[in-house]
Amino acid sequence: MRKIPVGILGATGIVGQQYIQLLQNHPWFEITWLAASERSAGKSYAEAVHHRWLLHIPIPEAIANVKVHSVEDASEAKKHCDLVFSALSGHEVEQIEENHAAAGLWVFSNASAHRKTSDVPILIPEINSHHLAIIPRQRQRRGWNTGCIVVKPNCSIQSYLIPLYALHKQFKIKRAIVTTFQAVSGAGHPGVASLDVMDNVIPYIPGEEEKSEWEPLKILGEIKGDAIEPLSSMVFAAHCNRVPVLDGHMACVSAEFEKKPALEEILHVWQNFRGAPQEQSLPSAPEQTIVYRHEHNRPQPRLDRNTHRGMAVTVGRLRSCPVFDVRFVGLSHNTVRGAAGGGILNAELFISSREH
Amino acid sequence: MRKIPVGILGATGIVGQQYIQLLQNHPWFEITWLAASERSAGKSYAEAVHHRWLLHIPIPEAIANVKVHSVEDASEAKKHCDLVFSALSGHEVEQIEENHAAAGLWVFSNASAHRKTSDVPILIPEINSHHLAIIPRQRQRRGWNTGCIVVKPNCSIQSYLIPLYALHKQFKIKRAIVTTFQAVSGAGHPGVASLDVMDNVIPYIPGEEEKSEWEPLKILGEIKGDAIEPLSSMVFAAHCNRVPVLDGHMACVSAEFEKKPALEEILHVWQNFRGAPQEQSLPSAPEQTIVYRHEHNRPQPRLDRNTHRGMAVTVGRLRSCPVFDVRFVGLSHNTVRGAAGGGILNAELFISSREH
Amino acid sequence: MRKIPVGILGATGIVGQQYIQLLQNHPWFEITWLAASERSAGKSYAEAVHHRWLLHIPIPEAIANVKVHSVEDASEAKKHCDLVFSALSGHEVEQIEENHAAAGLWVFSNASAHRKTSDVPILIPEINSHHLAIIPRQRQRRGWNTGCIVVKPNCSIQSYLIPLYALHKQFKIKRAIVTTFQAVSGAGHPGVASLDVMDNVIPYIPGEEEKSEWEPLKILGEIKGDAIEPLSSMVFAAHCNRVPVLDGHMACVSAEFEKKPALEEILHVWQNFRGAPQEQSLPSAPEQTIVYRHEHNRPQPRLDRNTHRGMAVTVGRLRSCPVFDVRFVGLSHNTVRGAAGGGILNAELFISSREH
Amino acid sequence: MRKIPVGILGATGIVGQQYIQLLQNHPWFEITWLAASERSAGKSYAEAVHHRWLLHIPIPEAIANVKVHSVEDASEAKKHCDLVFSALSGHEVEQIEENHAAAGLWVFSNASAHRKTSDVPILIPEINSHHLAIIPRQRQRRGWNTGCIVVKPNCSIQSYLIPLYALHKQFKIKRAIVTTFQAVSGAGHPGVASLDVMDNVIPYIPGEEEKSEWEPLKILGEIKGDAIEPLSSMVFAAHCNRVPVLDGHMACVSAEFEKKPALEEILHVWQNFRGAPQEQSLPSAPEQTIVYRHEHNRPQPRLDRNTHRGMAVTVGRLRSCPVFDVRFVGLSHNTVRGAAGGGILNAELFISSREH
Repeated sequence: MRKIPVGILGATGIVGQQYIQLLQNHPWFEITWLAASERSAGKSYAEAVHHRWLLHIPIPEAIANVKVHSVEDASEAKKHCDLVFSALSGHEVEQIEENHAAAGLWVFSNASAHRKTSDVPILIPEINSHHLAIIPRQRQRRGWNTGCIVVKPNCSIQSYLIPLYALHKQFKIKRAIVTTFQAVSGAGHPGVASLDVMDNVIPYIPGEEEKSEWEPLKILGEIKGDAIEPLSSMVFAAHCNRVPVLDGHMACVSAEFEKKPALEEILHVWQNFRGAPQEQSLPSAPEQTIVYRHEHNRPQPRLDRNTHRGMAVTVGRLRSCPVFDVRFVGLSHNTVRGAAGGGILNAELFISSREH
Repeated sequence: MRKIPVGILGATGIVGQQYIQLLQNHPWFEITWLAASERSAGKSYAEAVHHRWLLHIPIPEAIANVKVHSVEDASEAKKHCDLVFSALSGHEVEQIEENHAAAGLWVFSNASAHRKTSDVPILIPEINSHHLAIIPRQRQRRGWNTGCIVVKPNCSIQSYLIPLYALHKQFKIKRAIVTTFQAVSGAGHPGVASLDVMDNVIPYIPGEEEKSEWEPLKILGEIKGDAIEPLSSMVFAAHCNRVPVLDGHMACVSAEFEKKPALEEILHVWQNFRGAPQEQSLPSAPEQTIVYRHEHNRPQPRLDRNTHRGMAVTVGRLRSCPVFDVRFVGLSHNTVRGAAGGGILNAELFISSREH
Repeated sequence: MRKIPVGILGATGIVGQQYIQLLQNHPWFEITWLAASERSAGKSYAEAVHHRWLLHIPIPEAIANVKVHSVEDASEAKKHCDLVFSALSGHEVEQIEENHAAAGLWVFSNASAHRKTSDVPILIPEINSHHLAIIPRQRQRRGWNTGCIVVKPNCSIQSYLIPLYALHKQFKIKRAIVTTFQAVSGAGHPGVASLDVMDNVIPYIPGEEEKSEWEPLKILGEIKGDAIEPLSSMVFAAHCNRVPVLDGHMACVSAEFEKKPALEEILHVWQNFRGAPQEQSLPSAPEQTIVYRHEHNRPQPRLDRNTHRGMAVTVGRLRSCPVFDVRFVGLSHNTVRGAAGGGILNAELFISSREH
Repeated sequence: MRKIPVGILGATGIVGQQYIQLLQNHPWFEITWLAASERSAGKSYAEAVHHRWLLHIPIPEAIANVKVHSVEDASEAKKHCDLVFSALSGHEVEQIEENHAAAGLWVFSNASAHRKTSDVPILIPEINSHHLAIIPRQRQRRGWNTGCIVVKPNCSIQSYLIPLYALHKQFKIKRAIVTTFQAVSGAGHPGVASLDVMDNVIPYIPGEEEKSEWEPLKILGEIKGDAIEPLSSMVFAAHCNRVPVLDGHMACVSAEFEKKPALEEILHVWQNFRGAPQEQSLPSAPEQTIVYRHEHNRPQPRLDRNTHRGMAVTVGRLRSCPVFDVRFVGLSHNTVRGAAGGGILNAELFISSREH
């Protein structure tokens, strides 16, 4: 199989770097295009990223000398690749991503710009692969030929939404209160100052609680006409906190169901949970998306964030809740499953679904 | 006024050391008796504590050469002091504390041994100073002459129970879900291994959730006959977590009321909250027990734990809760207000109430 | 005594904030002037500093509503104060400080801009108070009437130079190798990213080793004509490292002397060391500048940085060195003694010397 | 090739666990014997290690049900394996290791018990593979038939001794001053209390400086008769410090040579350095033992400790030293190269040398 040529928008930032790392030796995708802001355009990747290369491995040799282009050059990008991963941040993300879609590219985005756009799916392959059905309407409505935009949710959501969704199918969730413990890498680099977070917890992350409460409802929603209509029968309250942890977002969850499940039923559901990535054997699929740890003090960010190469959600401490029905702790790797790894899994699902 | 001679049981441990620090220059109390395990008995305090002195100040000179006695010598203790602070831990705490009460001493304890004992009050002076009324019945029932036992609650509780209680009086709390972020000093020394908690969160503290859910109900309960009967109209769910913070326990709280208060009403209640420590001008009383911070990202453990010398509870982020009525973040210093400082405040309340 | 009116240049930054904190209730100085960049000029101090107030205490009420001026307004500053503390950083510091001196103000600076200027003394009051004798020549040469510039050294130096100087007087130091462990607060705010320094050490601080090797020689030098000539008989090698510590710079030192002292002699010298701050009873003088800890594992940044309100240097682990003569560990608080506290002590020495 | 059956003494501790992890899928060795203290003997490995399993992977299934024996059963051990790795600590290590050697086993030890024993080599394969020649004399002198004892050095040494040795061969080192930044995992589990090391540095590790100064001299020494005679022409001074880092010991080094090398010569020597592991293609050999990083701020523990699976030494910041000739920073993974990985490499060298 010829590999699909892919590009990275925002290639020099921390998420862009992770895309480069995770796409090394990818069986389906090959990096052929790197783009960043005007400041970097024209330089080699190694020059452009310079002292801001943050990964533990050196810059891959095949990438170091690749020329960085401007994110403005959407039509030029289309000549070099079919698909772009957007690791953009900042003000004009919305327009740049639309330009690339209009140029005929499949845009898989980590940015929040399009999450509230009604015809753009927020995709978690294990949950709402059927939302890809909105793509033809997205194209028709916007006059795009082959291009499209698919986004992934905020990085804090995976740790609790996937285990809750697995239960929702059978027991219907009514409401849940979620308190997050979020790693500093979630804020990018330089991100959180050491003077602010060492020996400390910061009980506030701008915009995070609103995203953590709303995005799950769209993910669990249904396509109605040209739009994805958020679920209205469920309500979340999120307390989002920054803790002195490098990687791995953890969440303490209390949930109430329409039909209260027994703890054994829940364990059974989680242990047998399989989604589109496993069914379609996607290259980046975790062996199991939900991994339950029976030890009394797990999951823990440092010990569990790399489960199944950072693509699994680790869950533990399932017990009954004196206020709601049950409570548990969930954990996922915010810069793998919650960022570049999640974006790549979305693209794999899209390619795989397209082919069948 | 002649100072009241006081002793410290478990004087060599971390909480014992804090009692020594906080009682330096105390206007009412003077340390005249130090007791610890058999291993330390007979040594000078400096010898007994040796390399395990953990405070930032050196051992006070007036204490360094004081002889340490055995915690078994209750009757000898009574010859040297009227009141003992128990900073004991381990297996025989219950019996040792009762021996001292039987010998005629007022025992103010940090230990959990007697918290479930029905005729022993768990005292937070701002909340249940009226529970001191059980002392005469405690004495009568047990055949104690002047002695008694009063305990303080688990260190995690202050951060959320005091602000909730202030509201409960007016709006009646039905239920609350609390997620704690607890400092490593809560586990004593050596306590939590650095290998376990650095770059990590541990979502489990043995016994902590049960205490955090039950103790508030006893504190808010009423004396019925010889016993304090826990409140039954309220229910708590606690998720207790250890975070890499040195001092200061923080809690994220969502609460539901019988009568939903407006946010302004809540602020008004908190800002005007005064309790027995302020009314009776107790020496260790914080100027204000509840300090509200209006910044969007407070309270934070490192910045706010020392508010009013570590005796206040700092609260922030009051906002409505999509699931319950309101939510907020509370913080208190676990080794000051939550340990030695809380024990001293209890003793001050007892002395003050006795005199009026 | 009427207090001397003082100003702070760069009042909104982290060092400026520390000046404000340390000058609260100062017996000699009263803040009457706050200046910062054009961006802040015209706002109240509370507005200008906004979310960037980093201290554990709130902004002092007497300061919150003070209007912030531009650092360009040197002549206006002179109408409101006699002395300015410069907590400036960035490009034009050199010129701004000279403008204030030219306007007749005594400038006490934390900035590095003038450290290499030959007629500007780098002052550590315990070491080179006699360097104040260059001030008349500085004025004459530059045509300044009453103004002058005095600077303090880089924040890492105090921890090793003061204990070495105490020995140098008697035993002549030939050379020393110094390895520093520097706190993140030394880089200001936001400064060091948490992603860079958590679970890590960064063995490089831009410009720091050069300053740590050269500045001591100027401090120990002698006035020759219009210039301070650095000492040439001594040589330092510095390895400077950033460690995940909030405050307190520590140094491991191996030193060689012309005349090798016995360890007891060294202890004797340190314990009896007194300098100008003690002799002249300056308000910010530590009770003892060098505090020796006999425990085998001290000094430690967290335990010892606040010794004598952060103005002392704590020393420990004196032992012989198999390669040179002796070795030891030194520690000083980088944002108190090493920044605002050191600047205030310099100003106190200047005022005190002037009066006698 | 049939795999060599190996045992692990002290299999339940943190170093024992690392042996288990690193020996999974080892091409030459197969674990057939696990031994620990009497307390664990008779239990399955999973039972014995219980809550003290510290690695990020679960206990390998093939090991979980293996029965743990007593470290006293040396003769029984010999029936099940040819070689044992000793991850023992505590008082009777010396005798237990000798019992196993007397029973005919090849003992490769991480313990310090035998490092000062004159006929036991302290082996770093890249440096002193020729010290294996003392084994026949060790056997003869002690009446051992096939058994022997080989030890690895203290975990802090690799980071500076390997790069210094590479230079020593050509330029003869006279003296060096080394300051270490050692990770908390070096103290085992529970090891360093979080209350002691968070936001702190501890400038003392019991016994560490003496080992760091003496062991290199034995490693660089020569066999004379039945003993390894330490080198006497070189002298080290070590300042050993504990820093809040999980894994990876770093060292700042200043060194003086008989014949001062140019910096380019040093880089050349390091880049071309190869030792016995590479020459004999040992399975655990790093591709390159010394990896030089040209960035101005490397090596860093978190970024570089895993270079070549934790078996390489990463070096950086080579520059001239104003006091000695040159200075640099070295780093090695203390629990891989400095513990279990180093022990396995020693055993591989022994097996490989034996076969040729």
